[in-house]
Amino acid sequence: MVSITRKAEFSASHFCSNPQLSPEENRALYGKSAGPNGHGHNYVVEVTVRGEVDPVHGMVMDLKELKAVLEREVIEPFDHRFLNREVPPFDRVTPTPENIAREIWRRLSPHLNQNGRRLYSVRLYETPDLYVEHYG
Amino acid sequence: MVSITRKAEFSASHFCSNPQLSPEENRALYGKSAGPNGHGHNYVVEVTVRGEVDPVHGMVMDLKELKAVLEREVIEPFDHRFLNREVPPFDRVTPTPENIAREIWRRLSPHLNQNGRRLYSVRLYETPDLYVEHYG
Amino acid sequence: MVSITRKAEFSASHFCSNPQLSPEENRALYGKSAGPNGHGHNYVVEVTVRGEVDPVHGMVMDLKELKAVLEREVIEPFDHRFLNREVPPFDRVTPTPENIAREIWRRLSPHLNQNGRRLYSVRLYETPDLYVEHYG
Amino acid sequence: MVSITRKAEFSASHFCSNPQLSPEENRALYGKSAGPNGHGHNYVVEVTVRGEVDPVHGMVMDLKELKAVLEREVIEPFDHRFLNREVPPFDRVTPTPENIAREIWRRLSPHLNQNGRRLYSVRLYETPDLYVEHYG
Amino acid sequence: MVSITRKAEFSASHFCSNPQLSPEENRALYGKSAGPNGHGHNYVVEVTVRGEVDPVHGMVMDLKELKAVLEREVIEPFDHRFLNREVPPFDRVTPTPENIAREIWRRLSPHLNQNGRRLYSVRLYETPDLYVEHYG
Amino acid sequence: MVSITRKAEFSASHFCSNPQLSPEENRALYGKSAGPNGHGHNYVVEVTVRGEVDPVHGMVMDLKELKAVLEREVIEPFDHRFLNREVPPFDRVTPTPENIAREIWRRLSPHLNQNGRRLYSVRLYETPDLYVEHYG
Repeated sequence: MVSITRKAEFSASHFCSNPQLSPEENRALYGKSAGPNGHGHNYVVEVTVRGEVDPVHGMVMDLKELKAVLEREVIEPFDHRFLNREVPPFDRVTPTPENIAREIWRRLSPHLNQNGRRLYSVRLYETPDLYVEHYG
Repeated sequence: MVSITRKAEFSASHFCSNPQLSPEENRALYGKSAGPNGHGHNYVVEVTVRGEVDPVHGMVMDLKELKAVLEREVIEPFDHRFLNREVPPFDRVTPTPENIAREIWRRLSPHLNQNGRRLYSVRLYETPDLYVEHYG
Repeated sequence: MVSITRKAEFSASHFCSNPQLSPEENRALYGKSAGPNGHGHNYVVEVTVRGEVDPVHGMVMDLKELKAVLEREVIEPFDHRFLNREVPPFDRVTPTPENIAREIWRRLSPHLNQNGRRLYSVRLYETPDLYVEHYG
Repeated sequence: MVSITRKAEFSASHFCSNPQLSPEENRALYGKSAGPNGHGHNYVVEVTVRGEVDPVHGMVMDLKELKAVLEREVIEPFDHRFLNREVPPFDRVTPTPENIAREIWRRLSPHLNQNGRRLYSVRLYETPDLYVEHYG
Repeated sequence: MVSITRKAEFSASHFCSNPQLSPEENRALYGKSAGPNGHGHNYVVEVTVRGEVDPVHGMVMDLKELKAVLEREVIEPFDHRFLNREVPPFDRVTPTPENIAREIWRRLSPHLNQNGRRLYSVRLYETPDLYVEHYG
Repeated sequence: MVSITRKAEFSASHFCSNPQLSPEENRALYGKSAGPNGHGHNYVVEVTVRGEVDPVHGMVMDLKELKAVLEREVIEPFDHRFLNREVPPFDRVTPTPENIAREIWRRLSPHLNQNGRRLYSVRLYETPDLYVEHYG
């Protein structure tokens, strides 16, 4: 079994707050991340696809296609955006790293799960010291 | 001559726009960075102080003091903020990397230029692929 | 399934030697690491916790709590210490990277295995080119 | 269960082309990588071995031995080579990252799968933004 | 005075050999780099431009323009090439890191030295552990 | 003018204390670094040599020679040592980063300042977030 992983970056702003909770609860839960003006990160996303190596091509999947899907489905709509205001569903779903990784998974998997290969994981770094990983 | 350099990070959002220019001019000049909702970065700042090495202490300056000044004057007021709205003078001055580095210089130099040493440079990374450097 | 990983660093010294072995055997086994005065590393530890994402909070666990546990149980007692002399059980257990990772696991797991989540792995870098990983 | 991972680098050139395919098909499949003069990378390989920690030695395996095997079986024959011309089987097998990782696995596993431990994965970075991983 | 630095990468192959020298002299001088089939690197180039900050724009130069010049003059012609065969003057000039950095300087400076700003340095990493820097 | 920079690493332990000062003064000045058992770092040293590019060789200096001098004069005597006890003059001179960089300069410069080139700087990272730089 072989996997291929492609890394990309996007710069976005967000804040973490849940309208079901009071301002005090949001501040207690999310700390400095709760400020409604937002703050930002250079998010790094690593997408891993697993599958068999095609015996003729020698590849799990065409890397140019993987780059194009990642660019079209994630980088283009997320980069240089205020996630809470400009990227659904983050107007309703708190853009914690966990929820952003899940949304990236949701956007990518229909385009990657074919020809015997499948999306294996989405890793999202919010800072160099913190990442989350979503498995299908 | 010896220098000491300390690195720190802050996560902030910003957008680049000059009210003296039209929306079209701002978009042409700053591209995706002109969006008024803002977007964000994990900014990395490297502060370099030059001076003589104290013959007893063996240091250009007390590292604990350098960390404390950087934390108090830059990280605390900038981290998890929307620069254009929450951190003067960026309500009036476009927060390009060049202008952010100059403001960091302005805030740090009074506290570091003493006892024969001086602030030598402020380097600011907006992304891992782009940095500016301000020299006094 | 989702995981969250937090990275932290500590600077410590150690040496590798087993009193059950002769000096020659220790030197053959551990090479330059056997010198009893010790030498040091900037150890990097990455702690991964797996669990369900809380539907209200949008998090596997409160990141502030994860940082506090890691700081209190590992960084505070290990940082700026000579492991063999100052941090039990390394007065009796050779502080190889494998044994250090196991000890970090032992210290962290009681505080992280609750509310349906569990400590999944402890990765410890001794240098940028060498790491070990402990799984429960 | 514990693993130990060792990282090493080699600088090599390669190109991707399959003689069963036409030049147009090769160009469509491999893009800029199909040019027959070759181009190059600083490949980074991370080799992970899993096993039990020896209760006396405190190690999964002797790190000096792991370094020696990796150096002798991979770095020495691959470094500063044109893979397609100088390193079999890449005269017949297209040196995609997937195929290079498989060949590294094939060369290393006989020397590492012993004494209760086994080669767990070979990760190969072609650039900092792209890696493949081979599992046994 | 302020500078702006932009980083980019290209993957190329090269070998170091001077036709004025004998094969033995070339081997003694350049070691493993003398092999005529070539080998490769992920070269990283950092281009630094110094100048005044435009009081209206808040920038030393338009970053989009800097990226476009670097892409057009260096990355496009160098990436995925065998420098000795495909990129003049390296058919006649040994592509040591020093000579590659000088050629990058020669290609970039006419496009960057204008409007009061100037190309200040070209840094070229051949590997993460080795770089050269060319000053005008 | 061109420079060449070579990076290398050594793992050592040290503590910072000046026998002219009281234990309280040492603790106030050096904080956690004053503990007499020592602690450690993966020190990274970057040595920069400036000079003219030899018109035949295309190099500021022979890279193999630079690596050999750095290995022989610095890495071999410093690596896996307790600096205060095993590496003169650190039995008498406090091994602050500033003083270690100066000692590296003192050891390297006689071997590098020749044939029209000269040692330009020694940069020493104690951690990824802190470095000092010594200029001749």
